Amino acid sequence: MPSPTAILDAHYMALAVQLARKGQYSTHPNPRVGCVIVRDGEVVGEGWHVRAGEPHAEVHALCQAGERAEGACAYVTLEPCSHHGRTPPCAEALVNAGVSRVVAAMQDPNPQVAGQGLRRLAEAGIEVASGVLEQEARALNPGFLKRMEHGLPFVRAKLAMSLDGRTAMASGESQWITGPAARAAVQRLRARSSVVLTSASSVLADNARMTVRGGELGLDPDTTALALSRPPLRVLIDSRLRLPLTAPLFQAGPVLVVTGAAADPRYAEAGHELLQLPGADGRVDLPALLSALAARGVNEILLEAGAGLVGAFAQLGLIDEYQLFVAGTFLGSQARPLLDWPLAKMSEAPRLKITEMRAVGDDWRVTAIPQPATGV
Amino acid sequence: MPSPTAILDAHYMALAVQLARKGQYSTHPNPRVGCVIVRDGEVVGEGWHVRAGEPHAEVHALCQAGERAEGACAYVTLEPCSHHGRTPPCAEALVNAGVSRVVAAMQDPNPQVAGQGLRRLAEAGIEVASGVLEQEARALNPGFLKRMEHGLPFVRAKLAMSLDGRTAMASGESQWITGPAARAAVQRLRARSSVVLTSASSVLADNARMTVRGGELGLDPDTTALALSRPPLRVLIDSRLRLPLTAPLFQAGPVLVVTGAAADPRYAEAGHELLQLPGADGRVDLPALLSALAARGVNEILLEAGAGLVGAFAQLGLIDEYQLFVAGTFLGSQARPLLDWPLAKMSEAPRLKITEMRAVGDDWRVTAIPQPATGV
Repeated sequence: MPSPTAILDAHYMALAVQLARKGQYSTHPNPRVGCVIVRDGEVVGEGWHVRAGEPHAEVHALCQAGERAEGACAYVTLEPCSHHGRTPPCAEALVNAGVSRVVAAMQDPNPQVAGQGLRRLAEAGIEVASGVLEQEARALNPGFLKRMEHGLPFVRAKLAMSLDGRTAMASGESQWITGPAARAAVQRLRARSSVVLTSASSVLADNARMTVRGGELGLDPDTTALALSRPPLRVLIDSRLRLPLTAPLFQAGPVLVVTGAAADPRYAEAGHELLQLPGADGRVDLPALLSALAARGVNEILLEAGAGLVGAFAQLGLIDEYQLFVAGTFLGSQARPLLDWPLAKMSEAPRLKITEMRAVGDDWRVTAIPQPATGV
Repeated sequence: MPSPTAILDAHYMALAVQLARKGQYSTHPNPRVGCVIVRDGEVVGEGWHVRAGEPHAEVHALCQAGERAEGACAYVTLEPCSHHGRTPPCAEALVNAGVSRVVAAMQDPNPQVAGQGLRRLAEAGIEVASGVLEQEARALNPGFLKRMEHGLPFVRAKLAMSLDGRTAMASGESQWITGPAARAAVQRLRARSSVVLTSASSVLADNARMTVRGGELGLDPDTTALALSRPPLRVLIDSRLRLPLTAPLFQAGPVLVVTGAAADPRYAEAGHELLQLPGADGRVDLPALLSALAARGVNEILLEAGAGLVGAFAQLGLIDEYQLFVAGTFLGSQARPLLDWPLAKMSEAPRLKITEMRAVGDDWRVTAIPQPATGV
């Protein structure tokens, strides 16, 4: 049986997690963080981190609590920072405000923090605890955590398919397999990502711009405005520089173009960046691309491309999560496959854990997580 | 706002629907029916139909109620019968027991009943109502209703596939795509069906017996015994009589073999029935087969076969429900398709309503219902 303290800690931390989610579309490269300050059973301060460069969640909550922070308990979804970044350290602010207890959902994996925030608080005589709703807190920041822990972004692959696992007719005909609710869900996946990654062949096929469109997000006006203030970087893999600069993708704003081809000054002239990362067979070196993006502070990548590029990422084990949007139709046995991934034996087949299937309008969304291979 | 009477009617009818479900594995060719008798707010009788030839639900419930049935209200999931079948008419029994009110979830579509049961009750001065929880009551008996209303059985196609919609490697390697919970669910689908329908190529590939195995049903002992007392008829489509009589399928008991080939007395000698239904191209006439099975009292068919036969049924519009068991794996772009169904244009793609996706052990089960084609 959990103790009354444990029950209350979980209750207030759940509130902090909810607050953190408000930063879903805007905090990157920073993590999403929420904070609740409770005194004598009353919530006296609530805060969440909005955007990098702006105050952290703790500062917002302390500001709202004012003098009532003295002797209060602060619940934070991530260990308070102890270093001077773009804002002063939050551990210091909590000490100065006179809180008597700090509960963190998890330690900050950022090597600049990594337990030092909690240590600083304990040294100042504040009671500290960590590990309350840690799983929920980790789920807030898959990209930030992957980058801090592995030096790589979190790669989420989005695919739209029929019930028989096909993405388009053999002719390429494919528009509008899924309905408006599924498209809005994809818009929200784009908006929460640091990068939307696509391929030249995919963009050539449907003239996509890969932008976030406020009217299609299905969010309230404030959240929509916040999302549009931090749009994802659009990254195009174009190994042979086939997509013309007149394409709608380029017209819609700056693009990071990744190629295996020679440098071409026209991209910079048109306001785009060209990154040369040649790999084998004239293709782009995908692992090097992920490392380069992590080094730029990219947390979550939404991979939206065809069976070729997604298949290449999958075969290299670079995908952390699949979001499969399934439409209620069969496209038949001649239609295009979900992934270009030739496998001959069952023993080569990758294992995935299907974590969720949920209705999205008339379509369904399947979330699946690749599992480590097990030796037989 | 529903009236108190309507709320109570729905409450007791839900109980009757639950009772009817107990007959899920045993009533065919009869419908699943439940009955609750309520007097002065007290349930005084409960009954459900167990097996054809045995008493109907109303008789069980009246028997339990005894003299307390007088002046009571009877809730029945299907209109009480008015004709002498293998048992005397239930409408008569309700009149004799002196009930004062009868609520039916739906009229019996059986042309031998079709409103006459309720009329007989009304003529005897009993208050009658119909249409309470009709949808739930219809869902109990998809096969019986389809047969009564359209002269055809309800065809449920079961397929096991990977997340990318493949059923087996190109080589045919396929065993155990899905786990034990999914296999138990398939066993229960077999057990509730009047017929399990398969093809020679499917049985040749994996030596299947297509039987119901009590130990794998995952049901309590009583329900398991009931299910095993009414096993489904196994029907094999073997247009050229390729499956040898020594195959495990034939060794496991009598099989109805449907063929386009010439008669062969060896099947009858071995205890099997041979039905000749030649169609086009030396194949079996599938619509004729369904009509023939309905004429034999077949309510629900579980179609368990490969992409060829299921694809043929699908293209003819003969499938009422798909049960797709989805395993957390990709089999890749060279693997076998879910259905052999060549389609060239999106406008030819059939529409389905995905009504449920639910976890079954480590696998997931998707239920999809074909929708009528809409002119564009």
